[in-house]
Amino acid sequence: MSIKFEILKESKTTKARLGKLYTCHGIIDTPVFMPVGTQATVKAMTPRELDDLGIQIILSNSYHLYLRPGYNLVAQAGGLHKFMGWKGAILTDSGGFQIFSLGKLNKISDEGVFFNSHIDGSKHFINPEKAMEIQIALGSDIAMAFDECAPYPSGKYQVEIAAQRTIQWAKRCKEAHHGSSQSLFGIVQGGAFKDLRIENANKLVELDFPGYAIGGLSVGEPKSLMYEILDCTVPCLPNNKPRYLMGVGAPQSILEGIIRGVDMFDCVLPTRNARNGSLLASSGNLSITNAKYKDDFTPLDNKCQCYTCQNFTRAYLRHLYMSNEILASILGTIHNLYFMSSLMKNIRLALLEDRLLEFKEEFLSNFLN
Amino acid sequence: MSIKFEILKESKTTKARLGKLYTCHGIIDTPVFMPVGTQATVKAMTPRELDDLGIQIILSNSYHLYLRPGYNLVAQAGGLHKFMGWKGAILTDSGGFQIFSLGKLNKISDEGVFFNSHIDGSKHFINPEKAMEIQIALGSDIAMAFDECAPYPSGKYQVEIAAQRTIQWAKRCKEAHHGSSQSLFGIVQGGAFKDLRIENANKLVELDFPGYAIGGLSVGEPKSLMYEILDCTVPCLPNNKPRYLMGVGAPQSILEGIIRGVDMFDCVLPTRNARNGSLLASSGNLSITNAKYKDDFTPLDNKCQCYTCQNFTRAYLRHLYMSNEILASILGTIHNLYFMSSLMKNIRLALLEDRLLEFKEEFLSNFLN
Repeated sequence: MSIKFEILKESKTTKARLGKLYTCHGIIDTPVFMPVGTQATVKAMTPRELDDLGIQIILSNSYHLYLRPGYNLVAQAGGLHKFMGWKGAILTDSGGFQIFSLGKLNKISDEGVFFNSHIDGSKHFINPEKAMEIQIALGSDIAMAFDECAPYPSGKYQVEIAAQRTIQWAKRCKEAHHGSSQSLFGIVQGGAFKDLRIENANKLVELDFPGYAIGGLSVGEPKSLMYEILDCTVPCLPNNKPRYLMGVGAPQSILEGIIRGVDMFDCVLPTRNARNGSLLASSGNLSITNAKYKDDFTPLDNKCQCYTCQNFTRAYLRHLYMSNEILASILGTIHNLYFMSSLMKNIRLALLEDRLLEFKEEFLSNFLN
Repeated sequence: MSIKFEILKESKTTKARLGKLYTCHGIIDTPVFMPVGTQATVKAMTPRELDDLGIQIILSNSYHLYLRPGYNLVAQAGGLHKFMGWKGAILTDSGGFQIFSLGKLNKISDEGVFFNSHIDGSKHFINPEKAMEIQIALGSDIAMAFDECAPYPSGKYQVEIAAQRTIQWAKRCKEAHHGSSQSLFGIVQGGAFKDLRIENANKLVELDFPGYAIGGLSVGEPKSLMYEILDCTVPCLPNNKPRYLMGVGAPQSILEGIIRGVDMFDCVLPTRNARNGSLLASSGNLSITNAKYKDDFTPLDNKCQCYTCQNFTRAYLRHLYMSNEILASILGTIHNLYFMSSLMKNIRLALLEDRLLEFKEEFLSNFLN
């Protein structure tokens, strides 16, 4: 079964929409934030913990799984869901972004990308066809087209080449993916250039994908520029298809994205920050290792209902982080994912009740970062 | 409330006993294995996970908590139970063993021990009175006397000095501890010398503690020697008090200890080994990172009912360990603690049904290590 996207309600004052995304592995309430499970695990979380946190979909990385344990092994296991014991939905990225950001690039051409593994330096080649083969083998619910993301900042010529190649690759991905029950999303590129974004989005839409991602943002450009790009890109995308802003997970950016019509988000930050002691409180990011929390016997966030906040104090959490205890990462991740989950729930409720802008204002007046 | 120990049944064919240890924080079924929560956390486990695993008592380390976060901070938090959010019982060791094994010793005298922290090299002094002050502040259910554990092997003279000092210190501990509702256990020393063990046990029993530990074993001596020491030491201890064999957690040694009349055990190995990929299977220790498990899609132990074995394959677990994922430690620890918990449950059932020796034979015929 491919995905089905249903819009339940459209905001009257913004471009936001409340929706449901139907997959083989459950229904996803949108707007949604997808936690990242890079190596077939959301770091420090068991699948039952994710389930308890109300998480309906996670993202996993083709690049990492291709290198380790190998996509054939995952296929042998019966696919990624079975391999990692996760019953919810999975979106896999194509590996494009990781090859460009993590691997040691050897050569990019229209044909594909030669790169060296960040783990052992071994040589690899991935092209659109291979990226589809990998994701079909992984068996994710949603696969992403193989794209080229130019670094930021790049000159217009370089960005244009990458954007055009992304369209050519999207076509090849569609062809290679034909016949699969998995849903394949296209990715809009075009860097920080509005005209390139519009042109790229229009060309991509011609190819008719069941969903569209906006890639290459939140890579160092000012937030205001990201919002401007969204302002001009989203209207080019069809209304009845899900829209996914890749790699964005800061609460403020999520709110701004939703207001501009985005339905899906992913980001490593809530989980990575959790492991580094940067915790999401209703008052903003809190650095729990700060000495002032040494003897603070209040919860991390007294407004939070998560397991961590209901059972432990800031002083204890700080002790765990200072002692490099695994439990620090576990409790921090539970909290940060609960925070994101609950933020998204509140956003959806606000959308349902036609008060998204009021919610945003109230939320951001407390969340100071 | 101090502890109360009740013997429900004595084995007809061995010295084993089935019992219940009543504490302020719940009833403990004995014989019991206590997981170690060195720094106020059983590594990689949330308290609710420990609870789900049926764990009734954990051990925590005074030495570590004294250094970090400091026992006054734990006292301010309302004691160790509240600090770490653990509702079950806690036994704290005195710090003696860790000072001798981890700290950089400066000077031991009858008065006490000068040592340098293994964390930052800072200078500290602990004596019996201080060890009691620390454990009273931590508020554990059971505290341990401050002892001197001579390294193995040591000459008889050195062991005798340490054993005599341990008795002198036990007296001072008892005096310093007087009036506390916490229960204080004495520790028998005497190394690998049977006559010293017997003398030491007899002197300790004269001081009348609510429970007795046998320390300084499983420190490098042959197993057969440890069993011989138990054979001559346990009979010196009163029948109606719990007996605790410190630092022992290998399934075979636990069985041999129980048969010789021991009620309580602790060891870091089931949790530490779990983090290193050495997992307890009914067929013996299994090194999950072994290449032969790469594409083994069966459970770690198909006889095991734990969350890990019910939901994940050896291939997935191996992948997690090879990728240094935190989930490896979580799932490995869940499994190893479940294994220990279930071993102890089966031992208690066998004791109840008067078939301990049969159980031991059957268990060890499968568990090959």
